[in-house]
Amino acid sequence: MALLGCGVVGSAVARLLTEQADDFEARIGAPVELVGIAVRRLGRDRSAAGVDPELFTTDAEELVTRADVVVEVIGGIEPARSLILRAFEHGAGVVTANKALLAESGPELYAAAEAVGVDLYYEASVAGAIPLLRPLRESLAGDDVRKVLGIVNGTTNYVLDKMHTTGAGFGEAVEQAQALGYAEADPTADVEGFDAAAKAAILASLAFHSRVSGNDVYREGITEVTAADVQAAEAMGCVVKLLAICERVEATPERPSGISVRVHPAMIPTSHPLAGVREAFNAVFVEARSAGELMFYGRGAGGDPTASAVLGDVVAVARHRVLGGRGPGESAYADLPTLDMGDARTRYFISLDVADEPGVLAAVATEFARHQVSIETVRQQQLADEDHDVEERAELVIVTHAAPDAALGATVEALAALPQVREVSSVMRVEGE
Amino acid sequence: MALLGCGVVGSAVARLLTEQADDFEARIGAPVELVGIAVRRLGRDRSAAGVDPELFTTDAEELVTRADVVVEVIGGIEPARSLILRAFEHGAGVVTANKALLAESGPELYAAAEAVGVDLYYEASVAGAIPLLRPLRESLAGDDVRKVLGIVNGTTNYVLDKMHTTGAGFGEAVEQAQALGYAEADPTADVEGFDAAAKAAILASLAFHSRVSGNDVYREGITEVTAADVQAAEAMGCVVKLLAICERVEATPERPSGISVRVHPAMIPTSHPLAGVREAFNAVFVEARSAGELMFYGRGAGGDPTASAVLGDVVAVARHRVLGGRGPGESAYADLPTLDMGDARTRYFISLDVADEPGVLAAVATEFARHQVSIETVRQQQLADEDHDVEERAELVIVTHAAPDAALGATVEALAALPQVREVSSVMRVEGE
Repeated sequence: MALLGCGVVGSAVARLLTEQADDFEARIGAPVELVGIAVRRLGRDRSAAGVDPELFTTDAEELVTRADVVVEVIGGIEPARSLILRAFEHGAGVVTANKALLAESGPELYAAAEAVGVDLYYEASVAGAIPLLRPLRESLAGDDVRKVLGIVNGTTNYVLDKMHTTGAGFGEAVEQAQALGYAEADPTADVEGFDAAAKAAILASLAFHSRVSGNDVYREGITEVTAADVQAAEAMGCVVKLLAICERVEATPERPSGISVRVHPAMIPTSHPLAGVREAFNAVFVEARSAGELMFYGRGAGGDPTASAVLGDVVAVARHRVLGGRGPGESAYADLPTLDMGDARTRYFISLDVADEPGVLAAVATEFARHQVSIETVRQQQLADEDHDVEERAELVIVTHAAPDAALGATVEALAALPQVREVSSVMRVEGE
Repeated sequence: MALLGCGVVGSAVARLLTEQADDFEARIGAPVELVGIAVRRLGRDRSAAGVDPELFTTDAEELVTRADVVVEVIGGIEPARSLILRAFEHGAGVVTANKALLAESGPELYAAAEAVGVDLYYEASVAGAIPLLRPLRESLAGDDVRKVLGIVNGTTNYVLDKMHTTGAGFGEAVEQAQALGYAEADPTADVEGFDAAAKAAILASLAFHSRVSGNDVYREGITEVTAADVQAAEAMGCVVKLLAICERVEATPERPSGISVRVHPAMIPTSHPLAGVREAFNAVFVEARSAGELMFYGRGAGGDPTASAVLGDVVAVARHRVLGGRGPGESAYADLPTLDMGDARTRYFISLDVADEPGVLAAVATEFARHQVSIETVRQQQLADEDHDVEERAELVIVTHAAPDAALGATVEALAALPQVREVSSVMRVEGE
C-alpha cells in the first residue's frame, strides 16, 4: 500500500495501520505492507505516525507505480487527480477521501478504474467516519431513494449551533469556531457552502444513479444568516441548519422529472431528527421508497474518524486483491437531469415588517396568489414602536406550502416592493415535515 | 432467483422485484428472473404480490436447486436451515432475513457457503431497513469496535414508549401495541427479549470478529418493568429502553478479556441519542476506537422496509454472479470469549423504601462498600406516609458507578435483607454516559 499525503488524516492512517497490523492481516487474509508515503517536503518531524522514516518520499509519481493499493489523502484537484489516474494505469486500486476531486472528476476516475478493472472507494469523502456511501451504493441498491437531507459540514453546524445556544451573530460564532479549531483561518470553503456542495454532488450521484458535479449544485452559504433569523427560527419551534439536499422531483407539464441538488440554510422543526445534531457532528437523513426514513449520525471530520473510513475502504480493496472480485463501479444509468434551483419545490418562511393598517394582509395575500404560492400559516402581531415613529407597525410571519423556488423568490421580491411593506426582515427556506 | 416464503416480507420482495425490474437490471447488469416462490399451501389469494400464479410451488426442496440466488424469508430454524444448506450445495448464493437461524447456526451456514464459494447475506435479520450489518462488516472493517448499544426490537420500544407517554402499566401498553399490530397475539419472543437476543448475537459476532450464539446472550425482557420504574426513570432525567448491548471488556486479574453480550431494560439519559427513538423505530449506537460514536436509525420491521434490506443484498449477490467476486465471509479470528453476565461492568439505579431514622444511610453505604461497589449519587427524601403507619419512611435513590454485575446483584440482595430497608422498590441498570 502507498499513502499519498501525511497530514492529519494521512498520519492517522499510517499510525493505525501499524497499531492494528494483526487485525488488518486477519481481516484481509494477508498483511498490509506500507511501501511508501508521499509528502511535499522531507525533513519534518513525522514521528507521530510511528512509521519508518525511510518510507517518506517526495516522488509520488514513482510511488504509485509500486503499490497495489493507493490511498490518496492530499486533497485538492492536482496533483491528486493525475496521481490517481497514474495509479489506475499501473493496476492499483484507489481509496480517496477527496470530495472536491470526486465532485469534479468522478466520471473520469470511474472510467479509468473501469478500464483496468480496479476499485475506486471514497467513503471518507462525505461525512467522515459515518458509513454512508457504502449504504447508499450497496445497502439501498434494491430500493428507490427519494430524498437525502444532510448536515455534512461540521464547521457550519458548529457555527449555527453556537448562534442558537449563545445568541451570537455570525461573525462572532465563526471567531469562536476558529479559536477552537473547528474553522480554518480562511473559512470560505465551509461557510460559503463549497465543501457541502461537493458532498451533495457525490451523494446525489450515488442516490440517483446519475452524474452530478459540484457545479450542478445550487449553493448558498451561511454568511447571510443573522441572529434575527436564528431567533425567528426559534420562535417557530425550528433550528437553522446548513443542509445538503438531494431530491427526486416529479415531472410537470413544463419540464421533465429530474433531481434537485442544493445546499442552503434552512429552518427545520426541533422535532426533526436532524435538529438535535449539535456542535461539529454530521448526520444524514435518507428517505427511500421501501425503507422509509433512515438516519446516519457521527463525526464528520478529524484525523482518526476520517482514517476509520479510509481504512474500511482499504480492507475492501485489499480483500479484492487477495480474494478476487471488485466493488461496485459507477452507476449512472438513470441519467436524471439536475434541475434549476427555480424548479426545486421548497417552502419559505417570510417575516415582514408592515404598516399596521387595514388591507395589509389582503395586499400581501394577493401577491402570494398572483405567484400561485399557497400560504400554510400566517401570524400577525403588533410591534413595539421602538423608533417612536408616528406610524403603527406590525409583523407578518408567513410560512408557505411547497412551491417552485422561482415562484417563491419572485413573491418575496414583489412583497418587498409593496408600499405597505417596510422591510422583509427575514426569509429562509423550511425543510422537514 | 427463488423466493422461499411469501408472507408480509416475501410478498413485498416479489412485488418490488417486479415493479422495479428495470432498475434491478441496470444495477446488476442482468435482469433478475424470479423462477419460483415456495409456499406452504397453494390456493391462497396472493395477487397483492403481483406475480404469475404459476410461480408458486410447495416443493421448496426442488425450487432451491434451480436458482442461482435464493431468498429465504420463511423464518424459524427448520425447514429454513436445511433449504439454505441445500441451496449452497447447488451453488446458489443466499439472502436471508432469519435472525433466529443466524444466531443459532451462523457458523455452520458460513462454513457451508465457504465450501462452495458462494455468498451469504443477511442485512434484514437485524434492524430491518437500517443498513447496519454491511457498515459493521465492511465500513468499520478498518476500525476497532468497542461497543454496540441498540434498540433492535420495535415491539418493546413501542410498549416502553407508551408506558412513558401515557403512564400505562406493562399489561395495558402491550394490549395497545397488540390492537395496533405492533405486538403479536403471543408477544413472548419480543417482550421476553428472545428476538433482541438473537440480534445481539449477530451484532456481537460481526463487531468483534468472534462467534456468539443466541444462547451466549444474557437476556432479561421487559415484563417486570413497572409504571413505577418508568416514573423513577423520568425523575432521574432518563427513559427506559430495552437494549441489546455488545461490549469489549478488558482483562482483570481474575479473568481474561472478552465480550459482554446482553439484552435487558436499562435507563438511559434523555440526552442520549437513543433516548429520542420513539414508537416502533429501531436505532443502533456504535462506538469505535477511531470513528468515535456513530448512530444508525430507521424502521426495524414491516414488509417494505425489510424487503428493502433483502433486495439490497439480492443486488450484491446477483452482481457477484454476473461480475465475479464474493462478499465477506465469516470473520471469527479474534475468537473472544463471551463473559458471564456477572463479569459485565454495569451501573445500577436502586430505589429503596427505608425507615427514616439515623444510621440508615450508613448501613446502606456499608453494604455497598462490602461488595466493593462505588456510589455515584445518592438522594434521600421523606415519603408521605400514605398507609398511616406509625413508622416514619424515607426513599433512598442510589446510582452506582460501573462495577461487576455480580457485585451489584449481590449488593441488592444484601440491601433487601437489611432491617432498615422495608422494600427495594426499583432496580434497573443504567446505560449511556
